[in-house]
Amino acid sequence: MLMVLDYAGVSLFAATGALAASRKQLDLIGFLFFAAVTGLGGGTVRDIVLGRVPVFWVIDPTYILICVATGVVVYLTADRIEWRYQLLIWLDAVGLSAYSVLGAAKGLAATGSPTIAIVTGALTAAFGGILRDLLANEPSVLLRPEIYITAALSGAAGFTAAHALGMPLYASSVLGAGIAFALRGGALHYGWILPRYRPRPGRPPEEAIRGKKKRRGR
Amino acid sequence: MLMVLDYAGVSLFAATGALAASRKQLDLIGFLFFAAVTGLGGGTVRDIVLGRVPVFWVIDPTYILICVATGVVVYLTADRIEWRYQLLIWLDAVGLSAYSVLGAAKGLAATGSPTIAIVTGALTAAFGGILRDLLANEPSVLLRPEIYITAALSGAAGFTAAHALGMPLYASSVLGAGIAFALRGGALHYGWILPRYRPRPGRPPEEAIRGKKKRRGR
Amino acid sequence: MLMVLDYAGVSLFAATGALAASRKQLDLIGFLFFAAVTGLGGGTVRDIVLGRVPVFWVIDPTYILICVATGVVVYLTADRIEWRYQLLIWLDAVGLSAYSVLGAAKGLAATGSPTIAIVTGALTAAFGGILRDLLANEPSVLLRPEIYITAALSGAAGFTAAHALGMPLYASSVLGAGIAFALRGGALHYGWILPRYRPRPGRPPEEAIRGKKKRRGR
Repeated sequence: MLMVLDYAGVSLFAATGALAASRKQLDLIGFLFFAAVTGLGGGTVRDIVLGRVPVFWVIDPTYILICVATGVVVYLTADRIEWRYQLLIWLDAVGLSAYSVLGAAKGLAATGSPTIAIVTGALTAAFGGILRDLLANEPSVLLRPEIYITAALSGAAGFTAAHALGMPLYASSVLGAGIAFALRGGALHYGWILPRYRPRPGRPPEEAIRGKKKRRGR
Repeated sequence: MLMVLDYAGVSLFAATGALAASRKQLDLIGFLFFAAVTGLGGGTVRDIVLGRVPVFWVIDPTYILICVATGVVVYLTADRIEWRYQLLIWLDAVGLSAYSVLGAAKGLAATGSPTIAIVTGALTAAFGGILRDLLANEPSVLLRPEIYITAALSGAAGFTAAHALGMPLYASSVLGAGIAFALRGGALHYGWILPRYRPRPGRPPEEAIRGKKKRRGR
Repeated sequence: MLMVLDYAGVSLFAATGALAASRKQLDLIGFLFFAAVTGLGGGTVRDIVLGRVPVFWVIDPTYILICVATGVVVYLTADRIEWRYQLLIWLDAVGLSAYSVLGAAKGLAATGSPTIAIVTGALTAAFGGILRDLLANEPSVLLRPEIYITAALSGAAGFTAAHALGMPLYASSVLGAGIAFALRGGALHYGWILPRYRPRPGRPPEEAIRGKKKRRGR
């Protein structure tokens, strides 16, 4: 069952990659490339840092075929979807939630360390989307006041804590994914944000300082 | 002989990296850095995902010395070349063709899977150039309607298919590299492109939608 | 003692990452993310290419906790620091110096090759900062005429040469780090640069050519 969830997660992220390609009006190969990078990126980095090489999609090429199939389907159907950007960010939210738990479970299985489980959960969930935005030259979610990595970390932490407290795997997974999706979904729907860092009152914002420096001829 | 080809491929890609550095008017160390990143990047990622670590240039540091030598030669001679950008993209095309086959051969040897062979072929061939453009802050080939990854995939697929059909290694290699170079060269010379994805007729292009959203104060 | 130095180096780089987050006015999780990426990035790539997986922070999660603690401290105190950018670049210089030696020592221990030691020294020292600038969308040190990678390479080379000549580990380390810091510090304080590549006299600079091409409608 974990494997089916894994295939589904890859397909979800692959779909967000292909939708990003549709926004850039790329060709079919561009769709497949972004589907593969987004679908496989997070898990690839997770496997490498954990020393689980060859990585998962080299061991089981089905993952590649899933990305290809998803890319083709999006290429053929994306023009019928009115709200592609909405679809992209909500699919991304579901994928993020599933992967924060799956990544934490793999990190826990490989090392037994809750700290590592939380980090690999967040890494697996967030890295594919970060890579997609970087390569697509989209403004990165990292630089916006968004609850994104926060949601992934919270989901991974919730799963890890529930598991440590003796909850069964299935219940811990649902709890962790639920926390992640509640936070990310709430952020998308209600615009929740964490307080941003502010320099102390009376100090001009960084942009103003930099602008002034530039005007001084820096 | 495969090793000589490999050295030659690294040197070709290293030269494109150094030429990119010359376009940015960097210093000598900048030339060496871009030569090394472009020459070694694709193969490094290929080795890591296949679990072949330490990676090739750690096992055989000759590859590093080749990048250094290529970087120095380009630093000393690039100002005599009138058409540096033309040279860069054509060297890149030759390197892409050679590496699509070499990467596929290594993927096939490591896993026996044709799917993996095609992916590692394309990865090895395309990743160095993508990394070069990303770090040099050049517009990525990924976002232009270019036959680039398509050529790498086709070369790797051609080699893999020919090999599976029992053609000898040498003939399969020439066939694969020939397919890749014909596609990439044709794209460069004749401007061949794949059809880009288009939203259905009557729908305004993405840029217009985003511009409108911005004007509405998003 | 090497381990204490290593923790200190991670904390220094993590602090530069968190300071970059403060310049972008991110939230607390953004501070932690940039602290972790900058503090752990260089060593992670070093370990992966050397085949030392799982990577160091998976084996010893203390490194992650150091990044988290550093990120929190910077989040709480950065607004009291007048010259955050100055602090960032000088901390970066100290971290660069320490890591050029540490990275070279690990590369030498893993392979015995002086060439690899110099490369892993520079890689460990420079990669975290490059990744930080790339993800923070800051102009990369790679494209400015800066003595940065040069300082890391020189420190790693100085350490490696001294070690090969039979100097004790402690003395070689101080010498290597001293060379790196002298070069990087001199570059920051006196504005030292290496000569940039210049096309031959009489040729217009690249920007002019590109501008002209664009005006011609490219």
